[in-house]
Amino acid sequence: MKTVEIVGIGTGNPEHVTMQAINALNRADALFIPDKGAGKSELADVRREICRRYVTNAAGIIDYEPPVRNPAIADYKARVDAWHEALAGQFAELLAQVPDGGTGAFLVWGDPGLYDSTIRILERVRAAMPGAFRVSIIPGITSIQALTAAHGIALNRVGEPVQMTTGRRLAELGPQGDSVVMLDGQTAFLGQDPELEIFWGAYLGTADEILISGRLGDVAGEIIDTRQAARDQHGWIMDVYLLRERG
Amino acid sequence: MKTVEIVGIGTGNPEHVTMQAINALNRADALFIPDKGAGKSELADVRREICRRYVTNAAGIIDYEPPVRNPAIADYKARVDAWHEALAGQFAELLAQVPDGGTGAFLVWGDPGLYDSTIRILERVRAAMPGAFRVSIIPGITSIQALTAAHGIALNRVGEPVQMTTGRRLAELGPQGDSVVMLDGQTAFLGQDPELEIFWGAYLGTADEILISGRLGDVAGEIIDTRQAARDQHGWIMDVYLLRERG
Repeated sequence: MKTVEIVGIGTGNPEHVTMQAINALNRADALFIPDKGAGKSELADVRREICRRYVTNAAGIIDYEPPVRNPAIADYKARVDAWHEALAGQFAELLAQVPDGGTGAFLVWGDPGLYDSTIRILERVRAAMPGAFRVSIIPGITSIQALTAAHGIALNRVGEPVQMTTGRRLAELGPQGDSVVMLDGQTAFLGQDPELEIFWGAYLGTADEILISGRLGDVAGEIIDTRQAARDQHGWIMDVYLLRERG
Repeated sequence: MKTVEIVGIGTGNPEHVTMQAINALNRADALFIPDKGAGKSELADVRREICRRYVTNAAGIIDYEPPVRNPAIADYKARVDAWHEALAGQFAELLAQVPDGGTGAFLVWGDPGLYDSTIRILERVRAAMPGAFRVSIIPGITSIQALTAAHGIALNRVGEPVQMTTGRRLAELGPQGDSVVMLDGQTAFLGQDPELEIFWGAYLGTADEILISGRLGDVAGEIIDTRQAARDQHGWIMDVYLLRERG
């Protein structure tokens, strides 16, 4: 039986990596690193830098180019499902390269449990190959944690709840109380109450980190402009923000 | 000017500590470790173990015994406020022991941004001593991340939001969609829909970790009994759980 480690590596700063992750990467026979093409090569570079700094046994790096979502599939869940199916086929091929009894590790941005597909995709692979491998998950620092640390704030107010949600959901429902919003390519904050306070960050943990905060009505335009300019410059952007009532 | 590092150290497993945290602890002149008395000495032990394993300059450990909340103050926010005020006085005394231009570090369980008071208490101290110190925050692995990793699950369903909340809020309002519940000394899950699925964990990341999951109506009694027995054995318990619809 093989072992698959799903290793959270944090968000942009190679020093986000935990000792648990470093030890797991050093135990692994193969390290799988996605290379999302020239546009997002900085993301692969962080993974490589972690291996260079902290993995003494880095001979086993295996690069792969993940499939992309098919924009021709209109329904969101069906589109994600087809994408996961394609990834499951690719993961099965990667795992075939792990020696019997050995360990393969996926280096996952952020935390494997938060808005990441690796756990679910490996469940698909396992359903098709019962008994072939066991899965172990190693938590990692998320962009939410990098966001609040960089702004010097707590995520929650005293005793209050916080919702983690997506841009899609924010656009549909508005904020459900204090809300931290991920995966918002559509800048759904624009349609919200201008009296809310926003704490926004992009490229968190990296040398390119950008932070903007303030009354939404005052800073929304600045965020839109900054976001567009940064996206043009880098070819991609990853951002996250907290919305809550002021004061 | 002095520097105060608020360092998230993770949740129970010394290997949760990040390289960023290790580097910060090694740069600090003083490491502040709360000792909550015999009942919770295991929590201080994890902090000491992190220093023993990863801090080469561990001469500067300063223990302190934090004040406890005053149960005579009936109002929750007033009780927390009085407790924070007492802690602020203690933190000011601790910071007086840091040399001018030097750095003091607080080792914080989990992440400093999630249901932890250290950021807010240091804001109070800073308001009373303007210009005396700057604050830097280092994120850490939370019990939520340790919970989902241990259960082998993702926190969110595909594209769905998740609320982080407290036992107090759950008891008042019930779950607001998929909910992860912290600080639930009152076992508020007992009053909820028995058809929900629960993923429960205690002492996460430690050798004493306990995990129970299943249909709430089927496992709630087992969790109550297990929780009480573990609490009797250890003298304290820290637990967290995810509640969501099944399937």
